[in-house]
Amino acid sequence: MKELQVELDDKGYPIYIGTGLLQQNDLLVKHIKSKQVLIVTNTTVSPLYLDDVMKCLQGFQVEVIELPDGEQYKNLENVTKIFDQLLAKKFSRNSTLIALGGGVIGDMGGFAAACYQRGIPFIQIPTTVLAQVDSSVGGKTGVNHPLGKNMIGAFYQPKCVIADIGVLDTLDDRQLSAGLAEVIKYGLIRDLGFFEWLEKNIDLLLARDKNALAYIIERSCINKAEIVAEDEFEAGVRAILNLGHTFGHAIETGKGYGEYLHGEAVAIGIGYAADLSRRMGWITRGDVSRILSLLKRAQLPVAPPKDMGVSKFLDLMAVDKKNVDGKIRLILLESIGKATLPINIDQSLLEQTLKNYAG
Amino acid sequence: MKELQVELDDKGYPIYIGTGLLQQNDLLVKHIKSKQVLIVTNTTVSPLYLDDVMKCLQGFQVEVIELPDGEQYKNLENVTKIFDQLLAKKFSRNSTLIALGGGVIGDMGGFAAACYQRGIPFIQIPTTVLAQVDSSVGGKTGVNHPLGKNMIGAFYQPKCVIADIGVLDTLDDRQLSAGLAEVIKYGLIRDLGFFEWLEKNIDLLLARDKNALAYIIERSCINKAEIVAEDEFEAGVRAILNLGHTFGHAIETGKGYGEYLHGEAVAIGIGYAADLSRRMGWITRGDVSRILSLLKRAQLPVAPPKDMGVSKFLDLMAVDKKNVDGKIRLILLESIGKATLPINIDQSLLEQTLKNYAG
Repeated sequence: MKELQVELDDKGYPIYIGTGLLQQNDLLVKHIKSKQVLIVTNTTVSPLYLDDVMKCLQGFQVEVIELPDGEQYKNLENVTKIFDQLLAKKFSRNSTLIALGGGVIGDMGGFAAACYQRGIPFIQIPTTVLAQVDSSVGGKTGVNHPLGKNMIGAFYQPKCVIADIGVLDTLDDRQLSAGLAEVIKYGLIRDLGFFEWLEKNIDLLLARDKNALAYIIERSCINKAEIVAEDEFEAGVRAILNLGHTFGHAIETGKGYGEYLHGEAVAIGIGYAADLSRRMGWITRGDVSRILSLLKRAQLPVAPPKDMGVSKFLDLMAVDKKNVDGKIRLILLESIGKATLPINIDQSLLEQTLKNYAG
Repeated sequence: MKELQVELDDKGYPIYIGTGLLQQNDLLVKHIKSKQVLIVTNTTVSPLYLDDVMKCLQGFQVEVIELPDGEQYKNLENVTKIFDQLLAKKFSRNSTLIALGGGVIGDMGGFAAACYQRGIPFIQIPTTVLAQVDSSVGGKTGVNHPLGKNMIGAFYQPKCVIADIGVLDTLDDRQLSAGLAEVIKYGLIRDLGFFEWLEKNIDLLLARDKNALAYIIERSCINKAEIVAEDEFEAGVRAILNLGHTFGHAIETGKGYGEYLHGEAVAIGIGYAADLSRRMGWITRGDVSRILSLLKRAQLPVAPPKDMGVSKFLDLMAVDKKNVDGKIRLILLESIGKATLPINIDQSLLEQTLKNYAG
């Protein structure tokens, strides 16, 4: 087992990465200071891993809420169901909430924990690659709004993250690939060596080689933890984690949540960002090809979504957390391995990308 | 104009107290760093004071949302309406939200600001005594749940609080008295001298003497700001601000939000807390009479609500933010001017109070 630390003064916490962690009772239990524990999970994960977690929690008052599986359910309505259960069972402010699932469960569980009685402790047990390498670390929680992705939420840090690589055995191929989009992102924004490693080893990852998976989860979490420690509330450098996300969020919102997996939309978004970075004169056509090639080898989509015209794209991108006074700002690439901070975009170049990018 | 400071490192902010502050453009404008401004207000306050605020905001992109007036509307549904408007108007993360109204508007506006894009700046312009002396200061924001008062929310500090005493001219008598319940609370929990001052001057306050009102708002805010600076997240001493509130919240939830004004329910709750403090052997019958007498002179109810049996009370009190592992904890009085920290309660004494307290 590897243990990393997210350094955030009194809000710091460990990330545990390894195999068989869900069978190690003490790992989970030592982070629980209450009698009352609520497990938030979904109908896909529950039959697979709920029993393991329950076995760790003998002697606690454990309640479980199972939500439907999918991005289209990441909304206030489902967070309200969590509140309803917490109140129906008279859970106190020292209760612990465990989010057992992928990014959707982690985001909703974390947001419910942030808001219930103005904040109760919570623990992330991510069960997808995407959640293990990205969404479970760093305290971004929240839900979608029909007009914008992740528009309602809170910065709220977990007490620990338990990333059990064993659970990835049951992940379907599409979900595995979606997670790799965020992994490739770390290479692109700040870790050229990692990008090169991925170019060499992407096939091992698709073959679910345990050592290779362990390596990318650890290296991704190291990158994420460093950025979060530097800028918890995204006043600056943290924004580079959004490479491809402004385009991706527009696609997710525009096509309807759940049509694309988040990682798939991010992959397409990275393609758009690469194209625009080239138009800015920062990276070459060769760089763009190299990026698209790795995404494709990871079985990720890179082609633009159908039926998303330029004006719809612009309209959706006008709602983004990096924007200032309603003006679109984007993360682009200065080179493979180095992202820009959010910058105001020459509207005509952006329109060229939206019009001409073909994947 | 008086200016107090809530000392919270990088989250500290000023409270301005005075007459005619809504006509001083620069006071408001110097705290706004964005072009986009949303004013959240209600149908009672809007016709009275919205124009004044709008006049301060010439040159900004100002949007307004008017919510219905009353505690029964302090829920997620109405906060969602604020999100809808922010998104429909494409408000960015640097936008400013202004809460113009009483405690309900301040709590909902603050919570919406805390959650929109994971947090946008907000400003409190409280228009009731209760909001000016208590709810607008200290960063407690949130909404009610059918099963419990203020159960969903966030600690989220405003950029400033503008308490214009002039707006109290239009406050109805019932609202004025409700605010005095929280004022009397400050005397009881930590400021004997203030309690004695209130005993001498309560009639001046009911007659809306401007100097007397200015004095109680300032002295209340000083008390509140000191406590909040010491314990922002209510890990300890801040809980004493809840004197009477566990009983009061049970009454508000049990009778249906809006039946009693919050301050009225708190007044009754203070009566219960005084009764139980006497049964604990800490204060005398004389002290209890003195407390009830001042509440009554402030035109506040002290009699128990009808149709709230002991078991219903206990059931509702089992959901409270001070409880630990589901056990009821209360703030009581060691003497007039000194509250206890939250303590576990001898259940039989609590039942005696619930059964026998007559106001």
